[in-house]
Amino acid sequence: MTEFSAVELIIAKRERGELTTAQIDWLIANYTSGVVADEQMSAMAMAILLNGMSRREIRDLTTAMIRSGERLDYSWLKAATADKHSTGGVGDKITLPLAPLVAVFGVAVPQLSGRGLGHTGGTLDKLESIPGWRASLSNGEMHSQLDEVGAVICAAGSGLAPADRKLYALRDVTGTVEAIPLIASSIMSKKIAEGTANLVLDVKVGSGAFMKDIDRARELARVMVDLGNDSGVNTSALLTDMSTPLGLKIGNALEVEESVEVLAGGGPADVVEITVELAREMLRLAGKTDVDVAAALSDGRAMDKWNQMIRAQGGDPAAKLPVAKHSHVIVAQDSGALTKLDALALGVASWRLGAGRARKEDAVQFGAGIQMHAQLGDTVVAGQPLLTLFTDEPERFERAQEALVGGIEYGATAPTRKIILERL
Amino acid sequence: MTEFSAVELIIAKRERGELTTAQIDWLIANYTSGVVADEQMSAMAMAILLNGMSRREIRDLTTAMIRSGERLDYSWLKAATADKHSTGGVGDKITLPLAPLVAVFGVAVPQLSGRGLGHTGGTLDKLESIPGWRASLSNGEMHSQLDEVGAVICAAGSGLAPADRKLYALRDVTGTVEAIPLIASSIMSKKIAEGTANLVLDVKVGSGAFMKDIDRARELARVMVDLGNDSGVNTSALLTDMSTPLGLKIGNALEVEESVEVLAGGGPADVVEITVELAREMLRLAGKTDVDVAAALSDGRAMDKWNQMIRAQGGDPAAKLPVAKHSHVIVAQDSGALTKLDALALGVASWRLGAGRARKEDAVQFGAGIQMHAQLGDTVVAGQPLLTLFTDEPERFERAQEALVGGIEYGATAPTRKIILERL
Repeated sequence: MTEFSAVELIIAKRERGELTTAQIDWLIANYTSGVVADEQMSAMAMAILLNGMSRREIRDLTTAMIRSGERLDYSWLKAATADKHSTGGVGDKITLPLAPLVAVFGVAVPQLSGRGLGHTGGTLDKLESIPGWRASLSNGEMHSQLDEVGAVICAAGSGLAPADRKLYALRDVTGTVEAIPLIASSIMSKKIAEGTANLVLDVKVGSGAFMKDIDRARELARVMVDLGNDSGVNTSALLTDMSTPLGLKIGNALEVEESVEVLAGGGPADVVEITVELAREMLRLAGKTDVDVAAALSDGRAMDKWNQMIRAQGGDPAAKLPVAKHSHVIVAQDSGALTKLDALALGVASWRLGAGRARKEDAVQFGAGIQMHAQLGDTVVAGQPLLTLFTDEPERFERAQEALVGGIEYGATAPTRKIILERL
Repeated sequence: MTEFSAVELIIAKRERGELTTAQIDWLIANYTSGVVADEQMSAMAMAILLNGMSRREIRDLTTAMIRSGERLDYSWLKAATADKHSTGGVGDKITLPLAPLVAVFGVAVPQLSGRGLGHTGGTLDKLESIPGWRASLSNGEMHSQLDEVGAVICAAGSGLAPADRKLYALRDVTGTVEAIPLIASSIMSKKIAEGTANLVLDVKVGSGAFMKDIDRARELARVMVDLGNDSGVNTSALLTDMSTPLGLKIGNALEVEESVEVLAGGGPADVVEITVELAREMLRLAGKTDVDVAAALSDGRAMDKWNQMIRAQGGDPAAKLPVAKHSHVIVAQDSGALTKLDALALGVASWRLGAGRARKEDAVQFGAGIQMHAQLGDTVVAGQPLLTLFTDEPERFERAQEALVGGIEYGATAPTRKIILERL
């Protein structure tokens, strides 16, 4: 490999230059091995955030990150594979009902997932609230579950895109998370290395999402769809609303509860809509277009698959879920339609209640979170319960409530809510 | 002190926000103590480089860096004090004749200096080529030398602006050197903490300088002049040419030799001109306007002061200076006027010959460097000696000569050379 100097590459990007394929390969390989230091990579990340990267550079960055580790392959599997990735939101438990729902139709879902950091919850944290369930599987366990059950949600092994893991932790503490080239390459390197043949991206837009406006979200989605298709992964994207939470429940065990409601044929309409839409899109990419997805929720087939999936990872789907020790009811301050029920405000409140973690080392509280008693657009009467806050540590209620200030508004006319904003 | 989060401050600057005085104080204090990590500070440095800082922020940054250490004070001294700082160039040995020259007129020069890094030489490296001379003085030694001799050039103690020392080392490896707010606060925090009452800045412009164009150099000079005057240091600046080396000698012992030539009343006209101009400006700031500066070079008073200054620090001004083991003559390829004799090319060549260091830990070769046999604008004949390269390690000749490629051009008409470009 040609040798470069980290300082020269940083200066090139700082001066709005385009890095060559060889330079990007060198940078990522040497960052992974420790030759390029954290303080050099963070300066580079800031230069990328402020000066951008061309499509070709982003593709090279993604390829280099995939190459830093192993790449899984499911071509031996009889079934087609499809996965979904969400850029993260508040109350976004969609992966939980979605994976078994898609598996019902014979398309295998090999989802390697992560933990939450910041105000958005992590899928693994949610599933770990189920007694006995474990996130870590060996490659062998993952393969046989995929073959036998057809759906697996587990932790990504350390061999997958190690450069991304290192870079992600660095970006988190250096104010360099919100860069489209870095977000896109981080997500796509993991998803491509994961080995899925088909991939649907759920790119969230709104206060509770990384991308606050639809133009930036569309740009991110375009970049990621191109990255996937260029790498041989059949990829599409939906832009979906994250200005208000999904469903009525936010928190780990609370979101498992709501997912089970959806799998039982019930649950909030918004959660059902997006689950069904994403399942249809995954199945369409995998070549299955003539299927009645919604029926699998109402007739119990998705629930059966969920139970198998949870049991295969040691979980007891019938076990009682953890409940927080303390609760606090917040009532409506006014009468009228809920014109604002802000995703970020509720996400931060739930995080502060203990549902999320401030640092990687922190544990989450499984029972902590928020039960909403109304959604955006619903009509409420002053004094009626609006939210119930849950936590094991009652001293957390005060700061959680501070996060809600300005996050809830009432008006005369209910706003229309659109869940699926665009398709790419 | 109010507590802030490093990530929040980085994001604020990343989004082109202005940091408050309290935020800048917190950042520098906590970077010095290690609470703010190197990788956070390098992301911040890149954000500052790309998004800039207001004059108020630069002033606060400088003040915070001064406050990270001790601030010296010479108000007890009978004489007025004046110092000069050059932003660094090739063949820039001016401090050596300048300090004793100014001291002749009863104005004390308390110069705390540095070592070279990159293609520009360091004043301390040059003086250390004098047998016996030592750069490290205690505060007490420095004070008595200033009182008795009137001029001292020594290493800055570790107590002076420690935040700057840490930040400078970080910038060097993270591609964040060339930011006006960071250059200005770095230079001025040290000079203000050093305690001089009057300060002349020699801001270099051209290929061999940090600032390649005059607009950026002027901006840097303005910012630094304001910083000095706002802090009670009577400050002015000259913008001077650094498109071609100063004088005929580049390297440590070689530059001492040429400085002694100037102190003996000879030396190249450009070195004499800039030395006299800077001395006049320092003396003017210190209130001495009716003095014949040039006379002190021709009548030996400056040389007497130099000898005292060198002896006071253990050096033998009469000792033979180190000479490189190997030399290599480069002849003119063409006949005509030298229309280009590039400062950066010759600076890098000298550096590669061993006159400079690649890393802080490296030693310099005292005898290494370049003796020029003609200057920009001089007429040469093809085949005549143009440069003599010196090094202790002959394997260095090849890479040094590579640096010269494209750096020397010949033409019909001699360009006019202006040394002092502007005064602020």
